[in-house]
Amino acid sequence: MSQATVPDTTVGELNDRVEAAHRAYLVARNVPPTERKNWLYAIADGLDANAAGLIELADQESHLGETRLTGELKRTSFQLRLLADEAASGEPLDLVIDHADPDWGMGPRPDIRRMNVPLGVVGVFGASNFPFAFSVVGGDSAAALAAGCSVVHKGHEAHPRLAARTTEIVVSALQGAGAPDGLFSLVTGIEAGSELVQHPLVQAVGFTGSTRGGRALFDLIADRPEPIPFYGELGSTNPVFVAPQAWQQRSAEIIDGYLGSATMGVGQFCTKPGLLIVPAGADLPALLADADVGRRLGQMLTQRLEDGFLNALQEMRERHGISTLAGGSGPDELTVLSTTAENVLAEPEILQQEMFGPATLIIEYSRDGALIDLAEALDGQLTATLQADDADDVDELVRVLTRKAGRLLWNGWPTGVTVSYGQQHGGPYPASTASRTTSVGTAAILRFLRPVAYQDFPSTGCPSGSATTMRRPGCGAGWTVCGPRPAGDRPDGRPDRDRRAGRWGGR
Amino acid sequence: MSQATVPDTTVGELNDRVEAAHRAYLVARNVPPTERKNWLYAIADGLDANAAGLIELADQESHLGETRLTGELKRTSFQLRLLADEAASGEPLDLVIDHADPDWGMGPRPDIRRMNVPLGVVGVFGASNFPFAFSVVGGDSAAALAAGCSVVHKGHEAHPRLAARTTEIVVSALQGAGAPDGLFSLVTGIEAGSELVQHPLVQAVGFTGSTRGGRALFDLIADRPEPIPFYGELGSTNPVFVAPQAWQQRSAEIIDGYLGSATMGVGQFCTKPGLLIVPAGADLPALLADADVGRRLGQMLTQRLEDGFLNALQEMRERHGISTLAGGSGPDELTVLSTTAENVLAEPEILQQEMFGPATLIIEYSRDGALIDLAEALDGQLTATLQADDADDVDELVRVLTRKAGRLLWNGWPTGVTVSYGQQHGGPYPASTASRTTSVGTAAILRFLRPVAYQDFPSTGCPSGSATTMRRPGCGAGWTVCGPRPAGDRPDGRPDRDRRAGRWGGR
Repeated sequence: MSQATVPDTTVGELNDRVEAAHRAYLVARNVPPTERKNWLYAIADGLDANAAGLIELADQESHLGETRLTGELKRTSFQLRLLADEAASGEPLDLVIDHADPDWGMGPRPDIRRMNVPLGVVGVFGASNFPFAFSVVGGDSAAALAAGCSVVHKGHEAHPRLAARTTEIVVSALQGAGAPDGLFSLVTGIEAGSELVQHPLVQAVGFTGSTRGGRALFDLIADRPEPIPFYGELGSTNPVFVAPQAWQQRSAEIIDGYLGSATMGVGQFCTKPGLLIVPAGADLPALLADADVGRRLGQMLTQRLEDGFLNALQEMRERHGISTLAGGSGPDELTVLSTTAENVLAEPEILQQEMFGPATLIIEYSRDGALIDLAEALDGQLTATLQADDADDVDELVRVLTRKAGRLLWNGWPTGVTVSYGQQHGGPYPASTASRTTSVGTAAILRFLRPVAYQDFPSTGCPSGSATTMRRPGCGAGWTVCGPRPAGDRPDGRPDRDRRAGRWGGR
Repeated sequence: MSQATVPDTTVGELNDRVEAAHRAYLVARNVPPTERKNWLYAIADGLDANAAGLIELADQESHLGETRLTGELKRTSFQLRLLADEAASGEPLDLVIDHADPDWGMGPRPDIRRMNVPLGVVGVFGASNFPFAFSVVGGDSAAALAAGCSVVHKGHEAHPRLAARTTEIVVSALQGAGAPDGLFSLVTGIEAGSELVQHPLVQAVGFTGSTRGGRALFDLIADRPEPIPFYGELGSTNPVFVAPQAWQQRSAEIIDGYLGSATMGVGQFCTKPGLLIVPAGADLPALLADADVGRRLGQMLTQRLEDGFLNALQEMRERHGISTLAGGSGPDELTVLSTTAENVLAEPEILQQEMFGPATLIIEYSRDGALIDLAEALDGQLTATLQADDADDVDELVRVLTRKAGRLLWNGWPTGVTVSYGQQHGGPYPASTASRTTSVGTAAILRFLRPVAYQDFPSTGCPSGSATTMRRPGCGAGWTVCGPRPAGDRPDGRPDRDRRAGRWGGR
């Protein structure tokens, strides 16, 4: 395990940081997103400018290697800028305008204008396996800051020095960009984490980690006098379903792609494909040997994760009907287990048992309908993958998997989650505690906003010259959202509604 | 109390209905919203065709009177049709398309298309105070059905015969429209309600009622092995802030409007303005007398609500510094209490004490800044109202109230919540257990959907003739979402993203 060089935060210090974060939020919420954008860009610039030192420190603490860490840091600063741009576009405000209508079907309608406002202080828990992209100023922090919230970050004990150094860079960048003091801070230690999620001023919590740890936080939050949203990304086994024709056409290619995805980051990805479901009858040992299953892997992130992995592996190997096709000795090479669909359907908890590390289970099926039955037996998943050819009939399988997962892949591999507008990282529990939201992509900003409707609020002149405008209440005197009031409404004959017609104007 | 003529549902019956609802959901989710629209229209038509009998029954059980109940039933069928139209428009799918991009800033991007899918069986708890609009087939049920979910409704004991009769009409209408059996059903009794929220197949719960009852359900749901969203609309005191100039100009008009709003439905509206905050020094007894404060009100909904109201009233009257300006004898006329801002700030729990019935508290303030201090002391609210003139400086007050409430009103009254696109009915806890969502308006549909991203899924030909289209996975073979792939992308130079470009095509 990494040596902790950062002392635990005391409860008094935690309270001070949350209170400072609340004061910063009261300022940040009144700053238009076009200006907040500069804060996130300054952080991204700070990360890029300090890349060499950060990557070296991250490698010392995580053993993930320079190549992977370089890509992850690039992703992290890209993500900050993308979410900043999205916030500045006004899209996350989700402005909807209902003009007054005396003839509205249920009786005269007032003028109603709804827009999103930031929630407040957000507690963000860093993950061990992505020391940049899901940690100090990863997706959750970027989304919260883009939304106009402040962040108190609980650093992960797997990379304490990196967390402290990253925080220095973030705080310095925010200061240089004119953001309010206290907008971002770091706390460390189990007690600080527990107090953080219970603090009355904390209005939402983001977490990426184990089902056990996440559920413990969920339960603490559910017991608060005032409940708040808990965005926990917990466990997932990310099954891959291989249809008969695809297997017949390209089994070697599928095994090769699968092993590549399953061993990324020494098997420590939340989207690691832990289950490969294939037609029975192939010579699996030969296929695995051809795909270089015995390749040496790196070191796991921490001793604790390695212990947990070896326990989960041992438990799986002791289950009925599980055999070992490759590896089995430890975390420095991939272990491949195998079993039958019949065995899994008799003991479906096999499907949920995540082995967080370099191990995977191949399930062989020998009858029509087994893929559907296995899909139906799944708990919630971050991802489900299909390997299928045109000749394979997988319509029903896709329908079932749509009920089970947040992202479905067609002839791809689930690791490597792109940060984009359409991305969905989350899924039914336990993949996520909030399946209606995503922790990756621009839509993550919405997790830290809530709508407020303004009824019959006065209009004032708009500096941009639009015909009719709306004063934006609660966001700094003079700032306006300008929504034109079209006379003829929408060309498609839809009701009088200006959806996302608003935009941010200047002072 | 109304005589219960409907026996309690047994646990066995409850399980049967939830399982039937799950089977119906498996069918409904594959039916395009353009067709599901007919189901909701059939229900609305059924309600309209049976209006006279329904209103008579509702009046017997609720004592709310024919005029009010006629309006409420009109609102209910309007709401069903509006939400059906919204679903059919495709808007709630919230389709986002990221085309593949080899030059994406963090590395090559696959094709990602995200859309919303229905959650499953929804448990809906009826409210006593709106026997149509927030009960059997009120907002929660309409939103869930529009989303493609099925509904098991827990009828409110305040109107058991109306709940049974309404259910008959709903089930018959759904049958006539070709909806799957079991899509909507009724259960009754406390045990059935408790079992309903814990049933593994139930995927979301909607509730409108007391903070105590709602919190009990919240806690049951938080203890589930698999947590689900709980949309509880609980308590709110809906304060009205009167600024100095407005009070000086039109105190009589404000008092008149306030009394009208506070006594609607015998004070049994969740948006009843329970607090009126005015400058000190006016002759309140004279103003109240002029506004006919002693007018006779109707009967409360149930004996239990009347008992609860009288207890809350008594408790408030026994607090320090509370005097009685009018009424005080019982629920058949409005009771008006009064106190000072100083007294309330010394004992801020006064602000949260809902008196659900015909009673209200006037708070007099005599210093600048008292409005802000009172606003800061509030818990979460469904609504906050400003009565202010142009000469009043309320910018900071609006900013504070934006943090406290889901809907802000300018020179209006909070009762009478219009059903529209921009409406927001909800707010920070305890106003709602899910402040990021609304229980009224078209956006309520989103509470029963979650996003799924499809990565690199194959395209097929589109029957509507669009250039390039996407197969809609998981929604019935042949149904498609057709999204054009523009060559030049957006005219404003935004990134390659077709937001809501999709629409539903035919088979």
